[in-house]
Amino acid sequence: MKEIERVLNPKSIAVVGASDNPDKWGYGIMERITSDGFAGSVYPVNARSREVFGLDAFSSLADIPDEVDMVNISIPGKFVAEVVKQAVDRGVKSVVINTNGYREVGRGDLETELLEIIKDSDTRIIGPNVQGIMNVQNKLSLNLGTKLFDQGPVGIIAQSGSVSAYIGEKMGDDGIGISTMFNLGNQIDLCESDFIEYLAGDEQTKVIAIYLEGPKDKDLFKETLIRNALKKPIVMFKPGSTEQGTEAAASHTGSIAGNDRIFSAACQQYGVLRCDDLLGYVDSIKAFALCPLPEGNRTVVMSTSGGVGSIVIDEVYKNGLEMARLPTAARQEIETLTGVKVPENGLLDLAIDTGIWQRVIETLCKNYSGCFDSILIVVADGVNNVEAMAGYAKNLTSKPILAVYMSYGDQYRENAISCLKREGIAYYGSPERAVKSLKNLL
Amino acid sequence: MKEIERVLNPKSIAVVGASDNPDKWGYGIMERITSDGFAGSVYPVNARSREVFGLDAFSSLADIPDEVDMVNISIPGKFVAEVVKQAVDRGVKSVVINTNGYREVGRGDLETELLEIIKDSDTRIIGPNVQGIMNVQNKLSLNLGTKLFDQGPVGIIAQSGSVSAYIGEKMGDDGIGISTMFNLGNQIDLCESDFIEYLAGDEQTKVIAIYLEGPKDKDLFKETLIRNALKKPIVMFKPGSTEQGTEAAASHTGSIAGNDRIFSAACQQYGVLRCDDLLGYVDSIKAFALCPLPEGNRTVVMSTSGGVGSIVIDEVYKNGLEMARLPTAARQEIETLTGVKVPENGLLDLAIDTGIWQRVIETLCKNYSGCFDSILIVVADGVNNVEAMAGYAKNLTSKPILAVYMSYGDQYRENAISCLKREGIAYYGSPERAVKSLKNLL
Repeated sequence: MKEIERVLNPKSIAVVGASDNPDKWGYGIMERITSDGFAGSVYPVNARSREVFGLDAFSSLADIPDEVDMVNISIPGKFVAEVVKQAVDRGVKSVVINTNGYREVGRGDLETELLEIIKDSDTRIIGPNVQGIMNVQNKLSLNLGTKLFDQGPVGIIAQSGSVSAYIGEKMGDDGIGISTMFNLGNQIDLCESDFIEYLAGDEQTKVIAIYLEGPKDKDLFKETLIRNALKKPIVMFKPGSTEQGTEAAASHTGSIAGNDRIFSAACQQYGVLRCDDLLGYVDSIKAFALCPLPEGNRTVVMSTSGGVGSIVIDEVYKNGLEMARLPTAARQEIETLTGVKVPENGLLDLAIDTGIWQRVIETLCKNYSGCFDSILIVVADGVNNVEAMAGYAKNLTSKPILAVYMSYGDQYRENAISCLKREGIAYYGSPERAVKSLKNLL
Repeated sequence: MKEIERVLNPKSIAVVGASDNPDKWGYGIMERITSDGFAGSVYPVNARSREVFGLDAFSSLADIPDEVDMVNISIPGKFVAEVVKQAVDRGVKSVVINTNGYREVGRGDLETELLEIIKDSDTRIIGPNVQGIMNVQNKLSLNLGTKLFDQGPVGIIAQSGSVSAYIGEKMGDDGIGISTMFNLGNQIDLCESDFIEYLAGDEQTKVIAIYLEGPKDKDLFKETLIRNALKKPIVMFKPGSTEQGTEAAASHTGSIAGNDRIFSAACQQYGVLRCDDLLGYVDSIKAFALCPLPEGNRTVVMSTSGGVGSIVIDEVYKNGLEMARLPTAARQEIETLTGVKVPENGLLDLAIDTGIWQRVIETLCKNYSGCFDSILIVVADGVNNVEAMAGYAKNLTSKPILAVYMSYGDQYRENAISCLKREGIAYYGSPERAVKSLKNLL
């Protein structure tokens, strides 16, 4: 979508409310724009200072002599409309309004006023009551509180700055980057559907993560999902599965959440994955970001622990997956090569000998890859170097590989986690989180 | 239970199979006993070496001139019975048998043989096919692969060395220690019921964490639970909620798992908490270790983020808890003191000003503590120092306080987590984990 591309790539930004006072939002915005590497021009606007962040400041937007593509507004509500008017007069492409005090507190009339101002202009609004946007590729971060994320395959659309920060930071912690992050706020103009459409066509984005309290336009939202859900995975979290949560969400961004069951059914119908818990949500985003899609539900479980292996088998069947049934020839071949007994239930209980792990992976991937659709690698208590086998397997097969890494606080953990990140393996701290993520890929 | 106390406090230990070769189990055992601080005498037994780990080695158990309280056996199965005989002859109190190849591979006959040998003696067996035990108080660790844990309130009984390590390491990672850890193995003699009885009477232990593939004696197990479940919280994880998992568990320690639904019903009846996922299991152990028990289901939610706050409200109601309803007077008092609007749904959306947090906590705890049974503190994206408010609240109330700490990878995380650990607050990485743990306390 050409318009969003323009919005995401301003050559110059004016920050109205820019400040050297760390208590002001305009400080946070200036800090991001000036320290994350944005290459365009930055114009602080402050009625009382001649300099902000060491840059020449202007007393109003109208005073800036050069062209301005984007305006960020972090000043009290009563001054916002006037600034938006000036932005329209200057032909600014987009205005990001952090200021709150609109529909979420019953002042929908102030939103109508803003829409009147931009009517018939080319100026678009993100917000108000929004935490900001981020285009990681050109190092543009207009976001209160969150540093620029590393670059990667996850596109975020979120109606809560805290949730978008949670997704972005959790991905970063797991070695996965972000392509673009859109916060929505009250979305009076540009809305979730515009951003979905953009991310669906964006080559950098492999998975679209949406946190939505309520769509701006239900019919448009539905159409957008239908049109785009097959292009790339869309993973959705929507609060309000209880009446009380719905009420709380409404007072947050003034959204009308609508019937939750209908929303859930719609997601299912359009091929959108809806998660009902935040941890499962980020787990699934991670799986889609790192794994190819499995072609079926048969999984091979390789474990350092028989006990944890049987817990994983429980999870596999609880989640509607099944253990790959290896033909007798495969089982015999593995037993001969490794000395490890392969039971009928298919659990490969391999203890901690990496030589054995390697031989089993080779045999499976080279000779029996038709027998399974995914591999689950289970590394239980503190062992050395078995986690590297996940990366080894990844080079031998194009099927998804997920790892359970359960060791905490022992001497191997740091290296093991680094290795899993480096190899781009989706790893999880418990069996149920890994298996549920694998199921969600299907 | 006097007998287990004797078993846990040996003054001298012989390690049969002790070795300087890191590939041998007897190396791992020696490493633990000699490096974790155990103050008793250690006698390596090795048929071929005169010295192991720098200590004088004996060619057989019979050759040790001094008294031996405990024997650890890590040698091949065919030699085990003879060593157990010698142990009985010497009047050894307990034998811990790491060696496997018994009922779990269909050789129940070898177990009968061992039982015959100890019949009519005072010698008790832990195992075979067991990863070891740990008495943290006297720094005794007889455990393959896991260092001595820090001392604390969690007692572990587990039929999987990997799971006991997972519990212990996860607790350690969260700043919580262990009192005693019993691994069960095939439990031919001392069994889960003996250890439950012991931990229920142990003053150091505040919560008993059990991972059980199948009880040795169902009736005894039932009686033990009935007798002890009211003394302190018992949190149970049992694999085998699917047929396939049951089968796998059976081949791990040769347990007969029995009907899973009956087991679940029994837990409920006796007041034992059964968790169905490993992460929820360690989450709940942590909650019991750190929190007093709530008297009711009314919770106060204080959040830095309105968005995440509404997700927490969903979780509260999904889990059968409810938001504490503050009387109008309380809401007005808080609004006057802080300038923060308190909605009827009770969500205290306090942003990141610790001054405001402090005033709200004081008002609630001092004037309105009859209105709520627990406090949930929600710290969403990277903010500074709000997490300290959990510790502040803990000093003002005797009600449970749990925290959601959702920030990853930002500059505040390390200090925040240290603070939560130091204050002994049960914190969780996502709303659903915290709320589920709170529910499990009830």
